[in-house]
Amino acid sequence: MAGNTFGTLLRLTTWGESHGPAIGGVLDGFPAGIALSEADMQKELDKRKPGQSKITSKRKEPDIVRIMSGVFEGLTTGAPISFMIENKDTRTTDYEKIKEAYRPGHADFTYDAKYGHRDWRGGGRSSARETAIRVAGGAAARKIIADINITGFTARVGNVESKKFDADEIEKNIVRAPDAEAAGKMIELIEKVRKDGDSIGGIVEVRASNVPAGLGLPVYNKLSADLAHGLMSINAVKGVEIGEGFGAAAMKGSEHNDRMDMAGGKPHFKTNHAGGILGGISDGNDIILRIAVKPTPSIASEQETVAKDGSERTISVEGRHDPCICPRVVPVAEAMVALVLADHTLLQKTARL
Amino acid sequence: MAGNTFGTLLRLTTWGESHGPAIGGVLDGFPAGIALSEADMQKELDKRKPGQSKITSKRKEPDIVRIMSGVFEGLTTGAPISFMIENKDTRTTDYEKIKEAYRPGHADFTYDAKYGHRDWRGGGRSSARETAIRVAGGAAARKIIADINITGFTARVGNVESKKFDADEIEKNIVRAPDAEAAGKMIELIEKVRKDGDSIGGIVEVRASNVPAGLGLPVYNKLSADLAHGLMSINAVKGVEIGEGFGAAAMKGSEHNDRMDMAGGKPHFKTNHAGGILGGISDGNDIILRIAVKPTPSIASEQETVAKDGSERTISVEGRHDPCICPRVVPVAEAMVALVLADHTLLQKTARL
Amino acid sequence: MAGNTFGTLLRLTTWGESHGPAIGGVLDGFPAGIALSEADMQKELDKRKPGQSKITSKRKEPDIVRIMSGVFEGLTTGAPISFMIENKDTRTTDYEKIKEAYRPGHADFTYDAKYGHRDWRGGGRSSARETAIRVAGGAAARKIIADINITGFTARVGNVESKKFDADEIEKNIVRAPDAEAAGKMIELIEKVRKDGDSIGGIVEVRASNVPAGLGLPVYNKLSADLAHGLMSINAVKGVEIGEGFGAAAMKGSEHNDRMDMAGGKPHFKTNHAGGILGGISDGNDIILRIAVKPTPSIASEQETVAKDGSERTISVEGRHDPCICPRVVPVAEAMVALVLADHTLLQKTARL
Amino acid sequence: MAGNTFGTLLRLTTWGESHGPAIGGVLDGFPAGIALSEADMQKELDKRKPGQSKITSKRKEPDIVRIMSGVFEGLTTGAPISFMIENKDTRTTDYEKIKEAYRPGHADFTYDAKYGHRDWRGGGRSSARETAIRVAGGAAARKIIADINITGFTARVGNVESKKFDADEIEKNIVRAPDAEAAGKMIELIEKVRKDGDSIGGIVEVRASNVPAGLGLPVYNKLSADLAHGLMSINAVKGVEIGEGFGAAAMKGSEHNDRMDMAGGKPHFKTNHAGGILGGISDGNDIILRIAVKPTPSIASEQETVAKDGSERTISVEGRHDPCICPRVVPVAEAMVALVLADHTLLQKTARL
Repeated sequence: MAGNTFGTLLRLTTWGESHGPAIGGVLDGFPAGIALSEADMQKELDKRKPGQSKITSKRKEPDIVRIMSGVFEGLTTGAPISFMIENKDTRTTDYEKIKEAYRPGHADFTYDAKYGHRDWRGGGRSSARETAIRVAGGAAARKIIADINITGFTARVGNVESKKFDADEIEKNIVRAPDAEAAGKMIELIEKVRKDGDSIGGIVEVRASNVPAGLGLPVYNKLSADLAHGLMSINAVKGVEIGEGFGAAAMKGSEHNDRMDMAGGKPHFKTNHAGGILGGISDGNDIILRIAVKPTPSIASEQETVAKDGSERTISVEGRHDPCICPRVVPVAEAMVALVLADHTLLQKTARL
Repeated sequence: MAGNTFGTLLRLTTWGESHGPAIGGVLDGFPAGIALSEADMQKELDKRKPGQSKITSKRKEPDIVRIMSGVFEGLTTGAPISFMIENKDTRTTDYEKIKEAYRPGHADFTYDAKYGHRDWRGGGRSSARETAIRVAGGAAARKIIADINITGFTARVGNVESKKFDADEIEKNIVRAPDAEAAGKMIELIEKVRKDGDSIGGIVEVRASNVPAGLGLPVYNKLSADLAHGLMSINAVKGVEIGEGFGAAAMKGSEHNDRMDMAGGKPHFKTNHAGGILGGISDGNDIILRIAVKPTPSIASEQETVAKDGSERTISVEGRHDPCICPRVVPVAEAMVALVLADHTLLQKTARL
Repeated sequence: MAGNTFGTLLRLTTWGESHGPAIGGVLDGFPAGIALSEADMQKELDKRKPGQSKITSKRKEPDIVRIMSGVFEGLTTGAPISFMIENKDTRTTDYEKIKEAYRPGHADFTYDAKYGHRDWRGGGRSSARETAIRVAGGAAARKIIADINITGFTARVGNVESKKFDADEIEKNIVRAPDAEAAGKMIELIEKVRKDGDSIGGIVEVRASNVPAGLGLPVYNKLSADLAHGLMSINAVKGVEIGEGFGAAAMKGSEHNDRMDMAGGKPHFKTNHAGGILGGISDGNDIILRIAVKPTPSIASEQETVAKDGSERTISVEGRHDPCICPRVVPVAEAMVALVLADHTLLQKTARL
Repeated sequence: MAGNTFGTLLRLTTWGESHGPAIGGVLDGFPAGIALSEADMQKELDKRKPGQSKITSKRKEPDIVRIMSGVFEGLTTGAPISFMIENKDTRTTDYEKIKEAYRPGHADFTYDAKYGHRDWRGGGRSSARETAIRVAGGAAARKIIADINITGFTARVGNVESKKFDADEIEKNIVRAPDAEAAGKMIELIEKVRKDGDSIGGIVEVRASNVPAGLGLPVYNKLSADLAHGLMSINAVKGVEIGEGFGAAAMKGSEHNDRMDMAGGKPHFKTNHAGGILGGISDGNDIILRIAVKPTPSIASEQETVAKDGSERTISVEGRHDPCICPRVVPVAEAMVALVLADHTLLQKTARL
C-alpha cells in the first residue's frame, strides 16, 4: 500500500534505487506451468537500456537480469517470481554537487517535502531506472497473453509527427518511429536540442491487437482506468488518451459512435474511434493508447532553483541524460499495457463459473 | 476486487443499477469525529442531477440521498458510511425496444461478451447513474480536505473554448463554463446538435488549490496515476492530462521545467507547467487536470448495429439524453479528485512516525 | 481498508449499526449467471435471528433481507449484490442508562479509546448484529461452491460436550448440537446460568466436506490462515483450531502425519489429523474447524466498571441477551467458511492458464 | 494477491525457495527517517537459524541478511526495503529420493494438486525456510513500535508444560522455555523422540506489553483477526487462541468479563481474561496469544505414502530435521505479532484527523 505494487491478481512489486546495489521486482500471482526464462526478459530490457544509440543516455548499464525464484526446470511454479538487475555504472560523483539543490522538473523537492530524508544519488527511488523492472515484469506478463500483440512506437517528437504506420520500421531506427522519413527528422531535432543543452518532449503510442472482447471490470477498474493508471505512473508521462482521446471532445456522437455489423459472420465494428474499449471493457477492436511524455528535466543549461537549506541557487544538471526519452519509454509503455492486459486476462477467468 | 471499489485507505464501494430500486455506496476508512450530513452530499448531487436545465436530460430524478450508517449525533464515528438514492423516474418502457440490439457507443455488447447475462434496462450497472454515488462520496471526502479548494468547469464544448477563467461565473451559466461569452456559444452549439438528433463532446477541467506539498506515493500510486485512474473511470472519459499535458510533447526542457525561488520566504515555483505534481507527489502548486469527454452515445438519429441473436439492425436511441454531458460531468470529476486527495491526505499521515 | 471488507476476489463489505435504520452488505466479485434469491439468504438468516427459541435473546427481529442490486431476472449479473435488513426492534431506552459506563467484556471502552466518538446504542457498529449480514453473504457464497457441504454445530457448552455426531440431529434441538442427549444437558445448563443472571461459553465446530484438493494460496493466504482470519473476526471468538488443533501439541509426528494410499484408485488419506489442509492448501479431506466462543459479556449481575468521565460505577446489563451465543454463532461460522471457500474457488481458477 | 504479501499499510512480500539461490523480502510502507540496519535483522535471524543447538536441525545456514534498498545513510527513506539471504547449505541430493513420493504431513501432494508443476527440492516454496524472511521483516517492524515489548517462548512440548514465567530464563535454555526446570524435561523429551526417529508438537506463547489502547479495526480487521491470520500462516501452526482462548468455552460471563476501576488514576482492568483485545481493539492490557505447533512431519521412521505416478510407496524422510520446531517458531511468531502491531500502529494514525 505504499505505492510500489501494481496489479490486482498479477502483482508486480518493485524495489531499488538508482545508485544502490541493485534494483529488482517480485511478480506474484503468475500462473504455474508457463515457460519463462531470463532471455525473455533480457530481450525487452535491451530495448530500454541506456547507451543503446547516439540519442540516448551515454550511461553504460548492461542491465543483465537474473531470476531468483518462481521458475523451476524452465517452467513457472505459481510461486513469486523474483528478479533483479545489478547497478553497475553508478558515478555518485555526478550527483555530489546537486546533493542539496533541488533539480527543476525532478522529484527532489517533493520527496524531501514528503519524507524529510532522501537518497539524492541519481534521484534514488524517483529515478526512471525503476522502469527497467517494469520492462522485465512486462516481458513475463506477455507469456500470459501470448495471443495478444503489443506494439509501441514514438508517434511524435516535439512537432515532428509519424505520418504513417509501418510496424516493421519501428526497430529499424533509433527513435522507434514507424515512419522512416519522420524518424530522420526526429533524430535531427533530438541532436539539435542536445547540442543546445536542452531536451524535447514527445508522444508514445501503444497498440494491442487480437484482444478478446470482455476484458475489464465495471466502474472503477475499467480496462481504460487501469491502463491510464499504469501509463500515468511512468516517469515523465503527463497525459493518457484512448482511441480518439482528446480529439473526441470536438466530435459529434454520430461521428464517434462505432457502428456494428455482422461482417465475417460475427459482431464486428466498422470503425474504431473508441480505441477498443466500450464501457471500460474491451470490445475486440485494437486497443489504441497515446501518452504525452514531457521533455527530460535534466538539462545542461543553467536554471534557477533553491536548496534544502533555503538558499537560492543556479544549477546545471550535467551527467549523461536522454535529450528525448521517448525511444526508451516505448518498451516501458508496452510493459505496462502487458501487465494490465495479463491481469485482466486472469480476472476474466472469474467472471462466470 | 470486482471493480466497484475506489481508494486505498478511504474506500468508496458503489452498487446499484439504473433501473433497480436504488443506487448506493459505502464509504469506509472515514476518520471519526467529522461533522457530516445529508445536506453536504445533497448540495453536490443537485449539480449532477438530470433535469436541471434545458441542455441536460429531461429525466426527473430528485436524487435525494439518505445516510444509513456511520454518522451519529452529526459526527462520523469511524464506521462505514452507507448512503443511498432511490431510483424514481425509471421508465423501463423506453428501453424495451432496445433490449436485444446493442446501442452503438454503449457497453451493451461488451457486458454481454463478458457476463453473458445483462440488465438491459437503461444500461444497468454501466449507466452513468452510478456517478451520482461518486458525487455523494466526494462531498464527504471534501470534509477530510477542508482546506483544499476543488473547482471544476467546462473548458470546451466541440470547438468552442472557454477563453478566460472567472470562477464566479461557473455556476451562473447552465454549461458551467468560467467564461460567460463562451458559455453562450456552447449552449447554442448544444441546442443545435440536439435538434439534429446528435450530441457533442467536450473537455472538463478541474483545479485544486491550496494542496500541501507531499501528497502522493512513489512509483505506482503517484498522485498523478491515482488521479488518472479515478478520472478515466468516469463514464465517457477518453483522455486525462495534467499541467501542460499533451502540450508538453512539443516543449523543451528549458520551457517546461518550473524554476524555484524563495519568494515569500519559502520554496516557491515561478511557473506551473507541471500542474502541481512532480515525481508523482504534489509540489504545492495548483493541481490542474483536464479530461476529454466523448459525445453522448445515445442519439436519436438512425445507426446500424447488431443484436444479441446475431441479426443486423438499425437503432434510434430515443429517451431523454444529454446532448452534451460536460456540465454534469463537472461535479463527478470534482468528486473523483476529492476522493483521491482525501485518500492521499490520510496516507500521508503514515509517511513518517 | 478500514476493516469492513472481507475477501480477495469475492469481497463482502458490510455497514450499519445495531440501532440505526438498517444494516447491509455489498458482495462484489460474484460471478454472473448464478441463480440467487432473497429466499436463499432468508433461510440462513432465520437460523441466526434472535427470538427463535427460549435460550436465545428475546429481541424480536424478523430480519427480512432485501436484495437491492446485482440480480436480474433471477440470475446474478456480475454487478455488486447489495442487500439490507431493516432494524425493527430497537429499544434505545435499554441503553440510555449505560450511555456513559463501559460494559465489561464489550468494545465500549476500546471504541472510545480509538475513535473518541461512539454510537452507544446497543453497541453500534461493534454489535454482533453485523453478523446477520455475514450470514446473508455466506448464503450467496454457497451458490459458488454448490458441491461443498458446510455443516456447523455446537460442540460444547461449558463443560458439556457433544459425544456423537448425528448431522440430522443438529436442527432438531435449539442448541444445535449433533447429539440429542448432550443437547438436553446443554439447554439445562444455559437455562440455569440465565436464571443466575449469568452466561456461559462454548465451542462451535464447522465441517466442510467434498472440498476439492488445491484450494488455498501459499504462505500468507493459506486456506488455514484465511479461515482463521474469518472465524476470529466473529464477535466473541477467542480461538480457532484446525484438525487436531491444540491437541497436535501433544502428538508425535508418527501419530499426526496422515498416511496416503491408493484406496479407491486415487490418492487417498487414511486418516485426517490435519483437518483437510496441508501446507495451507486443501488436501481433499473434510475441513474441520473449531472455534472458542466466550460467554456473552452482557449479564444481569452487578459488575464494577468505569465511565467515560473517569468515575467508577457498577453496572447491570439488562436487556434481552443470549445466555449462550453458540446456537446463533453456528450459522455465522458456516457463513465465514463459505465465504473463504468460495473466494478460494475463484482464486483457484487462476492458478494455471 | 497470490498470497505472498502480508499486511495492509506495512506490507511484507516474500519470495524464494528452499533450494534456490536465495530467499528475500520487500517491506513496503515503512515510514521514513527511522534508523534500521542489517544488524537489527541479524540479531533476530540468529534466533531462528538452524544448527543453533543440539535439538535443532543440523543444517548449517549462517543466514546472513543483506539490505538492498530503502535505507540511506542509516535511515529509512520511505522507499521499499528489500533484503535477502543467500541459500548456502542446499544438499539437493537429500531430496532426490523423494522427488516423486509425497512426504506425509507435507505440502507435496497439495502443491501438485494445485499447480501441477512443483519445485520438489526441500519443499521449494512450502519450506519453512520462508519464515526467515518474516523474522527479518519483523525485526524492522519492531522499529515502528519501539515502545512495545514482544516476548515469545515455548509454553509446552508434548505434555511438558512451562509452570512459571521468568522472562530472563527464555534465552538461557535451548528450548526457549521461561521455566528452567520444565526446559530440562522438554529437552529430554525432544532428544528421546529424535532417537526414536520421531518428532513432537508443542505450544508457543507470545506476549506483547505496553500496547496502547485503540489498535485494531472493527469487524474484519479486528486486531485479533489479523493476529490469527498472521500466526496461522506460519508453517506447522494448527491453532491460535487469545487470552483464555479455548478455556473461555468453559467459563461464565461473570468469570470471564474483566472489570475496570480507576486504579492509578486512569481506566484500568483488574484482570486480563480477554488477552488485551476487546471487540477486536487493544484495551491496553498485555496481548496474550498461544499457537498450537504440530510435530515436524519429516521423520526418519517408515511411512506409507503414494507417488505422483499413482504408485504406493513407503518413505523415510532422512535429512537434518528439527525433532521439535517450537524453539525456532518462537522468533517467527514474535515477528508476525510485530508486523501486525506495526501495521495497526500506522493504520491508527488515520482513525481521526
